[in-house]
Amino acid sequence: MASNFFGQIFRITTFGESHGPGIGVIIDGCPAGLSLSEQDINEQLAFRAPGKTIYTSPRQEQDTAEILSGLFDGKTTGAPIAIFIRNKDADSTQYEAIKDLYRPGHANFTYLEKYGIFDYRGGGRASARETAARVAAGAVAKKLLARFNIECLSFVFEIGGICIQMPDLSNLHAIREKTHSSPIFCPDATAAEKIMEKIGQTQQENDSLGGILAGLAHVPVGLGDPVYCKLEAMLACAMLSLPATKGFEIGSGFAAARMKGSEHNDAFEIDRQGRVHTATNFAGGTLGGISTGSPLFFKVAFKPTSSIKKPQATLNLQKEKATFQLPETARHDPCVAIRAVPIIEAMTALVLADALLMGQIEQSLLTKKH
Amino acid sequence: MASNFFGQIFRITTFGESHGPGIGVIIDGCPAGLSLSEQDINEQLAFRAPGKTIYTSPRQEQDTAEILSGLFDGKTTGAPIAIFIRNKDADSTQYEAIKDLYRPGHANFTYLEKYGIFDYRGGGRASARETAARVAAGAVAKKLLARFNIECLSFVFEIGGICIQMPDLSNLHAIREKTHSSPIFCPDATAAEKIMEKIGQTQQENDSLGGILAGLAHVPVGLGDPVYCKLEAMLACAMLSLPATKGFEIGSGFAAARMKGSEHNDAFEIDRQGRVHTATNFAGGTLGGISTGSPLFFKVAFKPTSSIKKPQATLNLQKEKATFQLPETARHDPCVAIRAVPIIEAMTALVLADALLMGQIEQSLLTKKH
Amino acid sequence: MASNFFGQIFRITTFGESHGPGIGVIIDGCPAGLSLSEQDINEQLAFRAPGKTIYTSPRQEQDTAEILSGLFDGKTTGAPIAIFIRNKDADSTQYEAIKDLYRPGHANFTYLEKYGIFDYRGGGRASARETAARVAAGAVAKKLLARFNIECLSFVFEIGGICIQMPDLSNLHAIREKTHSSPIFCPDATAAEKIMEKIGQTQQENDSLGGILAGLAHVPVGLGDPVYCKLEAMLACAMLSLPATKGFEIGSGFAAARMKGSEHNDAFEIDRQGRVHTATNFAGGTLGGISTGSPLFFKVAFKPTSSIKKPQATLNLQKEKATFQLPETARHDPCVAIRAVPIIEAMTALVLADALLMGQIEQSLLTKKH
Amino acid sequence: MASNFFGQIFRITTFGESHGPGIGVIIDGCPAGLSLSEQDINEQLAFRAPGKTIYTSPRQEQDTAEILSGLFDGKTTGAPIAIFIRNKDADSTQYEAIKDLYRPGHANFTYLEKYGIFDYRGGGRASARETAARVAAGAVAKKLLARFNIECLSFVFEIGGICIQMPDLSNLHAIREKTHSSPIFCPDATAAEKIMEKIGQTQQENDSLGGILAGLAHVPVGLGDPVYCKLEAMLACAMLSLPATKGFEIGSGFAAARMKGSEHNDAFEIDRQGRVHTATNFAGGTLGGISTGSPLFFKVAFKPTSSIKKPQATLNLQKEKATFQLPETARHDPCVAIRAVPIIEAMTALVLADALLMGQIEQSLLTKKH
Repeated sequence: MASNFFGQIFRITTFGESHGPGIGVIIDGCPAGLSLSEQDINEQLAFRAPGKTIYTSPRQEQDTAEILSGLFDGKTTGAPIAIFIRNKDADSTQYEAIKDLYRPGHANFTYLEKYGIFDYRGGGRASARETAARVAAGAVAKKLLARFNIECLSFVFEIGGICIQMPDLSNLHAIREKTHSSPIFCPDATAAEKIMEKIGQTQQENDSLGGILAGLAHVPVGLGDPVYCKLEAMLACAMLSLPATKGFEIGSGFAAARMKGSEHNDAFEIDRQGRVHTATNFAGGTLGGISTGSPLFFKVAFKPTSSIKKPQATLNLQKEKATFQLPETARHDPCVAIRAVPIIEAMTALVLADALLMGQIEQSLLTKKH
Repeated sequence: MASNFFGQIFRITTFGESHGPGIGVIIDGCPAGLSLSEQDINEQLAFRAPGKTIYTSPRQEQDTAEILSGLFDGKTTGAPIAIFIRNKDADSTQYEAIKDLYRPGHANFTYLEKYGIFDYRGGGRASARETAARVAAGAVAKKLLARFNIECLSFVFEIGGICIQMPDLSNLHAIREKTHSSPIFCPDATAAEKIMEKIGQTQQENDSLGGILAGLAHVPVGLGDPVYCKLEAMLACAMLSLPATKGFEIGSGFAAARMKGSEHNDAFEIDRQGRVHTATNFAGGTLGGISTGSPLFFKVAFKPTSSIKKPQATLNLQKEKATFQLPETARHDPCVAIRAVPIIEAMTALVLADALLMGQIEQSLLTKKH
Repeated sequence: MASNFFGQIFRITTFGESHGPGIGVIIDGCPAGLSLSEQDINEQLAFRAPGKTIYTSPRQEQDTAEILSGLFDGKTTGAPIAIFIRNKDADSTQYEAIKDLYRPGHANFTYLEKYGIFDYRGGGRASARETAARVAAGAVAKKLLARFNIECLSFVFEIGGICIQMPDLSNLHAIREKTHSSPIFCPDATAAEKIMEKIGQTQQENDSLGGILAGLAHVPVGLGDPVYCKLEAMLACAMLSLPATKGFEIGSGFAAARMKGSEHNDAFEIDRQGRVHTATNFAGGTLGGISTGSPLFFKVAFKPTSSIKKPQATLNLQKEKATFQLPETARHDPCVAIRAVPIIEAMTALVLADALLMGQIEQSLLTKKH
Repeated sequence: MASNFFGQIFRITTFGESHGPGIGVIIDGCPAGLSLSEQDINEQLAFRAPGKTIYTSPRQEQDTAEILSGLFDGKTTGAPIAIFIRNKDADSTQYEAIKDLYRPGHANFTYLEKYGIFDYRGGGRASARETAARVAAGAVAKKLLARFNIECLSFVFEIGGICIQMPDLSNLHAIREKTHSSPIFCPDATAAEKIMEKIGQTQQENDSLGGILAGLAHVPVGLGDPVYCKLEAMLACAMLSLPATKGFEIGSGFAAARMKGSEHNDAFEIDRQGRVHTATNFAGGTLGGISTGSPLFFKVAFKPTSSIKKPQATLNLQKEKATFQLPETARHDPCVAIRAVPIIEAMTALVLADALLMGQIEQSLLTKKH
């Protein structure tokens, strides 16, 4: 079943495995006339790269993108943009030892049941490496959004139970600066200190931590479509399509369940520019699935990294009891959530770029034009 | 933008407003040979009907479905199945008083901004009435799933801060029985008592409550597709496409963020039938986006009903300050979550029916056949 | 498999059978603000109605459309527009006699093989009645196109070997007038006379005739997309999706096979308004799948009506030799092509409306805007 | 607008230009367990390669495919299969001379109007080189089809007015052998002689020829879906999406317009194996859009190559009169139809693979299974 595409108008199709020639993406539907270079993509890939601090896995991927199509004189032509990232650092020998085991928390059991074949070397399409293609596509989406003054951001909100102080969502640039100056993409330096300490401890225990990431975007009123293409439905789909995610909430989220209507309803007011806005933003930036113009704000829950060095009870493919233990030399992230920050950002950009282009088919085309 | 369809193979397209002739759905892609009657659909619509208890709004819709196509001799033919539910009880006079106000927590602001036109009488496509078409379609999906021994259920998990005792998810039938014998679809009678008391209080305060619903399904291993069509991504999209939803989590959900890998990983074991299963189910029934065979379990957060009779500050369409107050005679639900139970169930059935049919294009077609 | 929808942005999904409650369509993606009434649709349905002359079958369907959704104050709201046409004149008794026979030239053999069930009363989805839903949807598409000064037309080009004199394609209105004043939608009165005579003869022989229809549209430059969504590919798909069609050609069509490049290439010139156009139009109005601004011109071949009253050798469902003969009282068209004129027009309008809306996502969005 | 994908279940997305790094395709939805190698693809690419005889252009592309993903141990894994073909022989200097001219019969006018940018070096997505990606994808489709004993073939039917003798369509292998032993893919050696002579003449005149190709496939009964996904509609769309095509006809095609119903209806009979088949095959292998099991047979019309060395009147981009003449050193095909043979074959395979997989979601799933 064709399941490797995302988006309707600004549509990406991704491919590749961690232990094959490489991974990549085709972006179909990007408008003509957008300036674009490999450098734009490599900058975003660098954010995703592991090995920058002890808080992420020490692989040295140094991903570089090759743009295979869709450009002429440094601009997009309206033709599909194919981007390829060749694998460099794929050592599959360490996987030999575990190739006959069902890996706890991993997809090899379900893939084997479904397909009867599994690329045990790196997880195939279930590998986190797949997300590099999303980041590459997101880089293009961001360039498009920038032309319409739409910006998006992701940052660490909570790790190992340590939560940040809620920042001022109206100042996206300030949050970005703080996020990018943190080794763990956490805009609250005090919380970041505690989180890093906790990560250190957990690593020593050969264990891993879960976390929550925040997504934020500044978008105009009117993005998103009613019923099945609500902006929050598209975001939820995008986020739950990421490996290791367990939940999504927008605005008040699960806390809304404990609120009353009179508390939760955001009152309409006039802002300083004379535009309609809401006094509070429990909605998280949408009403009826369409953006209100208030900051779009959501959170994504990540489970703790499933690949750990602690021994775990499991079965082998012959259904006999066995012990799974990640090889000592294997690389793993103590907390996948941290590395997911640029990926959340990329998926947000992809959802917004698609909604932006869909919005060009003005539903009010006729009222405006004639 | 075409945004009123859901599903790829078992695809529904819905239409209709609360104050027009009626609402309906076309189901395209239902296999031939399934026994189906209007009674099958009306039974499900009855669950959604309001006015059964004081805990839901007193409208008497008595929805009845007309099947307009797709049947011959009481069986589906493979042709599209169109179902229409004519509106009976649509009094729009009461909306006259509020038609010039932005309604807090409602979609009329964003619809007016996007389309330049809004059917103020009942909310147009943003009306909860739209969900009756989903329930009708879900009834057909359930009949299909039943042929493959797939069952799904939704129930109240928490309302107004009162949470149920976690039931045994392996016994879906027992939970269903308890859920359906409760006036508020709550399988825990003790919690239900407290919830109903709280709802009574809240109604007297002219206010409303939020809540959390649970979704449960028993499915075989192998449903769902990698990357963008992960089973949880499809469910998250389905759930966040419902009015008033603010969050989705599968299995451990947001709690996973506070767990360690060694706690969260579900160990593989052999069950009594000699099949591979997991000892725990923090995953919530999927790995790598594909069902494991363990109970599929997720939760959906609902905000408190936004239409309340308490006066609220707002603006009128001329951007002047105004007070919004639902007319005394207007009907509203003190807690929309309760009425959403059959809708969650329907959307779950639709996601699973689509995944089931996609799975028929066996990815392992070749390994099996030749 | 979901196969009853057409279009990506202006998307229709149709349903219904000739011998059930009725047939209908949902139009999803029509912009808000378009004036629309049931009268607009009924006018188009009237063109399709049989029984107007002896040259089409004598059924008196008098189809009337009910718009079930998507309108407010006489205008579209951006919500899906559902249209239903109730069946009135469905006498299925005459089909009893032939229900156990494979019908030569008909779909009951393939439907039975594929689905194991067939609605023998009227052909199910293979019935020509299905096309009324296309005409209803096309009526909405035409209203949208009219707002952008895009017009389309179909007319009889050749029947029973009698071909019309090629009209001046730049004068669409003149051709329309002549077409609509002809009882057989033929703009060339001399040819029409001969065709009607031939139809009369053929009817007396209990036989039927094939024919060729022309499609014509005046569209601006720039509609259509490269590669798989070329305008002619979409038109070819639309036309071959109609019952009884055997071929499609655009511009020079099959005659191009006997031409040389120096003859076939249309030279670029400046027209009186100073715009680039082509001196000839062998291309038929597109280059690289994108409209040139020259008249869009194509032809569609129809086989002779397969339901005839002449006895034909066949098999019954038990695979025994049998004779098929349409009951004396059965209604049939001596030449389906004639009745297909408004259907070709409708499908053309649907293809163009979709291409028009796609074009709103200006590929040159960026060059123009910034 | 995303327009570079084809197929619903076995879905391809193509990219690339003739003068960039290369061209390629992602195949999403190919089942797991299919043996596949780069050699399989290169064999098909070799058929498409020009320069083999004087009857096609003398470029020496020697295309070789790199499979970038989707394989493990020589078998498909169910993951997307990406194939890349690097450009080797792309000399763009010769295009400098004509970059400011509207090229008669070419897409540069419409691309410039639509996108405001055009890669003049090789035609961008309008280049025939794009079709190499289709051939690569078709090679995979063919391997899948072979596992189900489905075969397809294309051959030259008519060029420059010289038509072949109609072969026995039931013997696909014999036609293939004759086709592949001909330097111009023409199974009728006598006709081939005359055609080659005519091509030689035309080349000397610096002109080009059009032609008609035939497509043939042996498929089981039941492929294709009613209404908008009829097998012939999918084929028509596929064929008209190819550069230089002007028409499509199935079975009797345009000749059906001059036949009577009693002549055209194919009588049902029992064949030697006791199966239902038709005595004649005017239908061309489908009824109601679903394959009958008789040979699928269609024709595709190609215009004469538009790039010729004869001088032609045109305009430059400044709208001034100019003369277009392909540079003396430029390579061009005297008849594009010949080189399109493997492309027609590839597109046929892609349509059939998609229909085959769709058919796995048996519409009669329920009748058969329970």
